[in-house]
Amino acid sequence: MKAKPLGPIPAGYNAKDGQLAIGGLTARELVAKAGATPAFVYSKGHLTQRVADLRAALPGNVHLNYAIKANPFAPVLQHMAGLVDGFDIASAGELKMAQDAGLDPVRISFAGPGKRDAELEAAIIAGVTLNLESENEARRALAIGDRLGVTPRLAIRVNPDFELRGSGMKMGGGAKPFGIDQDRVPALAKHIIASGAEWSGLHIFTGSQALSADALIEAQGNVLDLADELSTQIGLPLPKLNMGGGFGIPYFHGDQPVDTAAIGAALEKRMANLPANLANTYFCIELGRHLVGEAGVYLAEIVDRKESHGVIYLVTDGGLHHQLAASGNFGTVVRRNYPAAIATKFNAEPEEIANIVGCLCTPLDRLADNAELPRADVGDLVAVFCAGAYGATSSPANFLGHGPAAEILV
Amino acid sequence: MKAKPLGPIPAGYNAKDGQLAIGGLTARELVAKAGATPAFVYSKGHLTQRVADLRAALPGNVHLNYAIKANPFAPVLQHMAGLVDGFDIASAGELKMAQDAGLDPVRISFAGPGKRDAELEAAIIAGVTLNLESENEARRALAIGDRLGVTPRLAIRVNPDFELRGSGMKMGGGAKPFGIDQDRVPALAKHIIASGAEWSGLHIFTGSQALSADALIEAQGNVLDLADELSTQIGLPLPKLNMGGGFGIPYFHGDQPVDTAAIGAALEKRMANLPANLANTYFCIELGRHLVGEAGVYLAEIVDRKESHGVIYLVTDGGLHHQLAASGNFGTVVRRNYPAAIATKFNAEPEEIANIVGCLCTPLDRLADNAELPRADVGDLVAVFCAGAYGATSSPANFLGHGPAAEILV
Repeated sequence: MKAKPLGPIPAGYNAKDGQLAIGGLTARELVAKAGATPAFVYSKGHLTQRVADLRAALPGNVHLNYAIKANPFAPVLQHMAGLVDGFDIASAGELKMAQDAGLDPVRISFAGPGKRDAELEAAIIAGVTLNLESENEARRALAIGDRLGVTPRLAIRVNPDFELRGSGMKMGGGAKPFGIDQDRVPALAKHIIASGAEWSGLHIFTGSQALSADALIEAQGNVLDLADELSTQIGLPLPKLNMGGGFGIPYFHGDQPVDTAAIGAALEKRMANLPANLANTYFCIELGRHLVGEAGVYLAEIVDRKESHGVIYLVTDGGLHHQLAASGNFGTVVRRNYPAAIATKFNAEPEEIANIVGCLCTPLDRLADNAELPRADVGDLVAVFCAGAYGATSSPANFLGHGPAAEILV
Repeated sequence: MKAKPLGPIPAGYNAKDGQLAIGGLTARELVAKAGATPAFVYSKGHLTQRVADLRAALPGNVHLNYAIKANPFAPVLQHMAGLVDGFDIASAGELKMAQDAGLDPVRISFAGPGKRDAELEAAIIAGVTLNLESENEARRALAIGDRLGVTPRLAIRVNPDFELRGSGMKMGGGAKPFGIDQDRVPALAKHIIASGAEWSGLHIFTGSQALSADALIEAQGNVLDLADELSTQIGLPLPKLNMGGGFGIPYFHGDQPVDTAAIGAALEKRMANLPANLANTYFCIELGRHLVGEAGVYLAEIVDRKESHGVIYLVTDGGLHHQLAASGNFGTVVRRNYPAAIATKFNAEPEEIANIVGCLCTPLDRLADNAELPRADVGDLVAVFCAGAYGATSSPANFLGHGPAAEILV
């Protein structure tokens, strides 16, 4: 049996009494605090440090938004509200979560291709900025604003002709359901301005989960060029530019962290030489996964250790119902291992090759294939890292009747 | 733009007043009844007919179990409880659902590789049959039975050396986390019998979502041979045999329905010539998807119709948060179109090639690619068929804060 490498464990996770520790608590203490396995454990310290690192790397005039779809757990939102400049939301449900976290709606923007009238109305009443995805949506938003007697804050989401090279998900370049093709943006912007709405600029999102600083620098440069060009065509300096995000995190063997210092230095240069259209623009970047992904760990308990035809299976009480992406079943072609470990033997040497699986009755339910691990038994805890983003809410929690995992922020 | 074929619409769906109708109600009437879009609509008539067809095809001594993981919606369970002979469950959560549906626990069996002690205990107290997945689980179940003073009903799930050819998911053949390798089954069965538990026979599950009658006939033959062989080694006639399921449904262009008449005829022959070990055995097959999959339709409303670089997108208020498998993101390598239609123009001729997408801000959220459809506009309803199994509960309903779809049984 050939070992299959595990992804790299993010920095900042150390052992205490031989166990993985987060926020000073061992894995067993964390499970006791969470009240059950499986549990998602999110680290305040990690979140705070990540934002501080980004602030240090990025120019001072580039504001930082958190895309709450990555992790909308209420305590995480409350913690992030004190760290970032704004939130990006994707539904009326997320609007409510953002409001419940106490964030000023002026600092919230709402993107998403299928906004219903009720969602547009809730956002306009709250004073949230709408990133419009089509002419039709603009028409509906203006009509709702008129009807309510509220001036809507309207930005346009641009479908750019370029894309973010090497991104996990391409959000621009060619035909897309997102945003408005760039050549139709000036006419719509003029119409919005003429309609008396609060013109809130552009949202240009080019892709996500990119690790290459070069690709991100190139995309940001293209975004700034396009914003300038569109502003000229619109005939007004740009009030606001959401430059998108795209910064990824390492999940798999061989992945390297994004060089944010290099991105910050390149952006600093651009910011020192802004064209007139962008001289007074409010800039922000919008990040989800990069802010919270590495701050989360999923802990599950081993309920069986079994062998079949010489292969060892560590069967846990967790699984793809909480960790769909880690199982390799969420838009993945070739399954690779996320970083994982035996949390209760965190600094023990590998002794065997084993498979970590979930409790679901499907061969899709795999957490680590052919992993080199210390010997683990029933009662030991397994940790899957990079569980802070697109974990709990991006997985089918009700599959096979198991229900959601516990979540705690420590 | 080349059209990409849609999957075949299941039999029994017709138009009324130009709209898709289910149970005599048009799509718009169904949405009004459900109270919202998106909505899953399940058809009692379809469920009843499917079970009747199977009863007609299969030998009278082969009982029919419903694997409730395919669709645990309470009204569906209640309806199925009156049609089938037993339920298969995969968790304590499903046990509660089965009990709430009023099914006698003696008719329930519980499989799943990661059963916790609390789940074993709940099942033993209820009188449910446990399909044991390992020696360790057998030990735990016997200990719990001793402690409670309750005789547990114990069957063994076998990991057979053969598999179901052409199945969507292989559950046997080689190393697996499911069941106990066949060569270790006799020793464990003897131990269970000697321990005074109620010996409840074997569960041999070889795969799922197979459409080839030949493959299913071959697998069933192998299952019967293996059951006989293991019974000889155990030294007792077999009380009960769960032969697994594996009958699929057509999802994609070119798929043909399973020839259940051919399977029934082959099984009838085998049943007429049973070896002594199986002469008094209670036989059942266990089906999920085949019973409920084609009985369900997912209805979503078009909230935007937009063009990008000449490509038409029909943006709905539904998406992969309810229809993960249909979006092609649940263990799929190459995305193909499920059967889909414009429900409000159900018998209109195709006029254009369009993409049906969901409301989520991700390129993964596709319901039909390059589909030939009648012209559809904002307010029209889209239907995605084959939504009765592994839809609502197998999708990440909380992704992006949208929440679950409505569900109705008509």
